Amino acid sequence: MAGTLPRSPLAPARFPELPVISGVRFASTAAGVRYAGRDDVMLALLAPGSTVAGVFTRSATRSAPVLDCQEKLRHTGGADAAGAAILVNSGNSNAFTGARGEQSVQAICAATALATGLPVERIFTASTGVIGERLPHDRIIAVIDDLAASLDEGAIEPAARAIMTTDTFAKGASCTVEIDGRTVSIAGIAKGSGMIAPDMATMLVYIFTDARVEQKRLQALLSELNERTFNCITVDSDTSTSDSLMLCATGAAGVDAGESESFAEALHAVMLDLAHQVVRDGEGASKFVEIRVSGAQSDAEARVHGRSIANSPLVKTAIAGEDPNWGRIVMAVGKSGAAADRDRLGIRFGDIPVAENGWVSPGYREETAAEYMKNQELVISVDLGIGDGQAVIWTCDLTHGYIDINADYRS
Amino acid sequence: MAGTLPRSPLAPARFPELPVISGVRFASTAAGVRYAGRDDVMLALLAPGSTVAGVFTRSATRSAPVLDCQEKLRHTGGADAAGAAILVNSGNSNAFTGARGEQSVQAICAATALATGLPVERIFTASTGVIGERLPHDRIIAVIDDLAASLDEGAIEPAARAIMTTDTFAKGASCTVEIDGRTVSIAGIAKGSGMIAPDMATMLVYIFTDARVEQKRLQALLSELNERTFNCITVDSDTSTSDSLMLCATGAAGVDAGESESFAEALHAVMLDLAHQVVRDGEGASKFVEIRVSGAQSDAEARVHGRSIANSPLVKTAIAGEDPNWGRIVMAVGKSGAAADRDRLGIRFGDIPVAENGWVSPGYREETAAEYMKNQELVISVDLGIGDGQAVIWTCDLTHGYIDINADYRS
Repeated sequence: MAGTLPRSPLAPARFPELPVISGVRFASTAAGVRYAGRDDVMLALLAPGSTVAGVFTRSATRSAPVLDCQEKLRHTGGADAAGAAILVNSGNSNAFTGARGEQSVQAICAATALATGLPVERIFTASTGVIGERLPHDRIIAVIDDLAASLDEGAIEPAARAIMTTDTFAKGASCTVEIDGRTVSIAGIAKGSGMIAPDMATMLVYIFTDARVEQKRLQALLSELNERTFNCITVDSDTSTSDSLMLCATGAAGVDAGESESFAEALHAVMLDLAHQVVRDGEGASKFVEIRVSGAQSDAEARVHGRSIANSPLVKTAIAGEDPNWGRIVMAVGKSGAAADRDRLGIRFGDIPVAENGWVSPGYREETAAEYMKNQELVISVDLGIGDGQAVIWTCDLTHGYIDINADYRS
Repeated sequence: MAGTLPRSPLAPARFPELPVISGVRFASTAAGVRYAGRDDVMLALLAPGSTVAGVFTRSATRSAPVLDCQEKLRHTGGADAAGAAILVNSGNSNAFTGARGEQSVQAICAATALATGLPVERIFTASTGVIGERLPHDRIIAVIDDLAASLDEGAIEPAARAIMTTDTFAKGASCTVEIDGRTVSIAGIAKGSGMIAPDMATMLVYIFTDARVEQKRLQALLSELNERTFNCITVDSDTSTSDSLMLCATGAAGVDAGESESFAEALHAVMLDLAHQVVRDGEGASKFVEIRVSGAQSDAEARVHGRSIANSPLVKTAIAGEDPNWGRIVMAVGKSGAAADRDRLGIRFGDIPVAENGWVSPGYREETAAEYMKNQELVISVDLGIGDGQAVIWTCDLTHGYIDINADYRS
């Protein structure tokens, strides 16, 4: 399926120039897991001293690789000295594959440990694609030596391509920041376009930096920023069994960024950029929508309202039809379960006041709102008027393209 | 829009023969609220002594008529003696219309009270259609005298048609039951096809019986049965601002059915039939799907799993594509938030074992499952294997038809 879909109209013009992150090298190849004629396995090798943090799906049916990564990150004490490796395949998610799924992960980790000289506890894997089919791990193991032999600092873009499934473009983002007179770089890649409603992290995302950040701090930073980036996007309200977000700090830049505000800001920018790119590649998406919620009883309640709006099929189809059907926003706020007062609710499309004080805004003209809805990027603001809670959620519309892709898509 | 859509392929062959319910008369007419060339207002008049119960949406942005009905049902002591009237319009939901919405309800209730000789406290109204536009109540008031003058015991079918919006067929169901040697009849009508994920009741549903049932008992019966019927259906996970379910007992059959098991069973059958008809008219629906959940930690958790499966866009599009993509069921169970153990989960499509013990069932053949998915009516069974909780949820698939209807539908 991958590769046959037209490129999303919301895609960036091209894959960005990403800085080399000293201390991490990449390799990709075609193992024929499911797809023909394209790379479907990637290996990233991290130099000794690198710290690794991860956030994963909370799905009760999470995949074997996710369970394995979580277990390994639980006991990272002193493991940094060895370095680490990340091995990812697309085409098969190795989810709901029972004991055989765990055997596949063990076999892949053992082979990767052998090829890289790393302890097996430092091999992290991920698999993305069809659920419930046995992973043909022999095909992956057959290419690991080749991957280990062809590692290259500059090969992050092919790695981003190798992890794609229904993605219509490869996703990358980067940022550089000065700390103590030294330049620190952050570069990340992501895949994802359907089954996107992260409950903890989303899809597959790998971010690398040459800063030095102690592991506990790295994990805290990642978890905190995840709440404001990947956990604020939704394409279709469906949460993947494989969501994995990992952040690796090689320390090669020779500067500790653990307490640096500007490092945290740069990392936030990279994560948000990648999260937005996932939405921009939402299956069938034709509009990129930012939903700003304010005046809710708490930030958590603002997020509940924002998700209710962003996941509503009726809101999403109205946006697809360029219809300023703001009554559906009212409906979505009403059903969310979070507190709302009908007569304090205010709604804006872009800068256009649409509703206030429990009714349509004075001077609202449907033609003006309809004109605004023709934009490819939309901002919908909802003010609950009952507190200080706020949230921003990003989503896309629901179009015929989503049905086309999903009514007969496998992996 | 209504009337221009093709009849749902899941529709029953014809509107059923409904028995006359002694003590209630109907009238419908065209008031031009929004639609041209069709009836859009209906009046039902209940004889003195009738009891009335109601269940309504829990939406925080519920409509002015819903708020008014709830207020009136809160204080029904002794009001039965007067009889009651129900007045419903389609085309405009009078939701999110602020103080003007309440004024419209008051004006309509006052005019209906005048035309019927009933106290205003016994006039119940409902409005369904576009949200956020002022209800042109003058057009409705202008036809009330005509409605009151043309009431007819046998006119329930045109009443069912007058309350339709995007419905592609009128919905009716009935049952008769013998109690103490007398025949008691129940007949009901419903509208609904989108914005269907009842949180309390669904859409507009009016059920009438000639049994005598004391008001508190009538309300208890309705609320209890609602949990197993309308609260177990979902078309698109969106909850309406106007959901109203009312049950009226005229007592004309001269028998008290309040404690009758067979009456409760008959009422359950009528409610379930109407609930299923709403799903069968789900916007764009091509398949009717029953999702049976068992082995959950509790009935409530079983329902959470069932709704998670039924509302998943990826499950619904796979069904539309006749793809036995059971991995998406695993995903929906995993994301639901209710307890699940990957390795105890079992899934069946009809009688076909699909997954068990955390993996695909031995002997599962995709061709057999694919053949089953071609049926217009599907049963998907999920056993959690961790408790005794069970639930049944009914839903439909997600097709291009849903996008067609909702990307440019207004009311």
